[in-house]
Amino acid sequence: MQEILRQHIEKIVPLTDDEFTFIAAHFSVRHAARGEFLFQQGERVKYSYFVVSGLLKLVYDDDSGKQHIASFAMEDWWESDYLAFYTQRNATMSLQCIEATDLFCLTLEDYRQLCAGLRKMEQFFLHKSNYGNIGAQQRILSFLTSNAKERYEQLLHRYPSLLQRVPKTQLAAYLGVSRETLSRLGRS
Amino acid sequence: MQEILRQHIEKIVPLTDDEFTFIAAHFSVRHAARGEFLFQQGERVKYSYFVVSGLLKLVYDDDSGKQHIASFAMEDWWESDYLAFYTQRNATMSLQCIEATDLFCLTLEDYRQLCAGLRKMEQFFLHKSNYGNIGAQQRILSFLTSNAKERYEQLLHRYPSLLQRVPKTQLAAYLGVSRETLSRLGRS
Repeated sequence: MQEILRQHIEKIVPLTDDEFTFIAAHFSVRHAARGEFLFQQGERVKYSYFVVSGLLKLVYDDDSGKQHIASFAMEDWWESDYLAFYTQRNATMSLQCIEATDLFCLTLEDYRQLCAGLRKMEQFFLHKSNYGNIGAQQRILSFLTSNAKERYEQLLHRYPSLLQRVPKTQLAAYLGVSRETLSRLGRS
Repeated sequence: MQEILRQHIEKIVPLTDDEFTFIAAHFSVRHAARGEFLFQQGERVKYSYFVVSGLLKLVYDDDSGKQHIASFAMEDWWESDYLAFYTQRNATMSLQCIEATDLFCLTLEDYRQLCAGLRKMEQFFLHKSNYGNIGAQQRILSFLTSNAKERYEQLLHRYPSLLQRVPKTQLAAYLGVSRETLSRLGRS
């Protein structure tokens, strides 16, 4: 598993063996079963997670019991409730495994120590954060400009494997449409 | 104007006079008139902008001529088409002044030189980028979970001055609702 983390970081910054040993010491490893929660709404968010294998969903359950999916996170993605993580508040969302998932876990304290101790990691996180912002700006734009059919097609174009891995009810909860609307789109 | 930039950065990292002199040399200053475009869809995006005073809108004009507003940017905010800025592609959105606006402008090359030359600036940008991601995660969640009335109330709660500064047609284009829907909300 460590080799996957190293390759992921080295896509942005090259590392010596000593540097990677320093980095790896700041992460813990976790295997979570399908359906398991990494945290739930109202709990403290202790970690930001890097997905080695498997699939997560970041969800918000509203007062009426309806579930909304803020994002999916698959191999090579980072995920957390970032408001809760960075400000050490309680989670407004829950993070749950759609599949059995292998993860690296990073506390805020370890995140800070990594940034302070190795400038390359600060550069790595800045790069990831900037590209996270690009992705979010694109998704906001798609909410404003695209109808359900277009958002569905954009999603399948970008992440074709999701259709196989995620039940349609959950794709609908990510797209902000009803299950019935999504079924009509899937057939057309 | 320089003092405002310094105070903005010093909210995150303290600076010596020499450090700020180094920083300020990487920015250019621009005054843009009301209605002026900083860039338009299809153009190269040369700068990321810091707003000293005034108000911008980041917009997408779709094929039918309808305008969608991805974001507003007022005093103390950074704004650009970040996909285009970081990847040096042409803009998919336009950035236009709603009011006469004073700006600091930073090229990608100067951004990189600032990060490389002064670690505090890398820390500053990482902090801003992380909080940008938090804001985007919250806005995506509000698209999924809130109806038009709730999104309107959230906007006015967070930025009460926008109601005075932005025409209702444009608030509607930001919220993703029709002008008529917004008028009904404003009266209730």
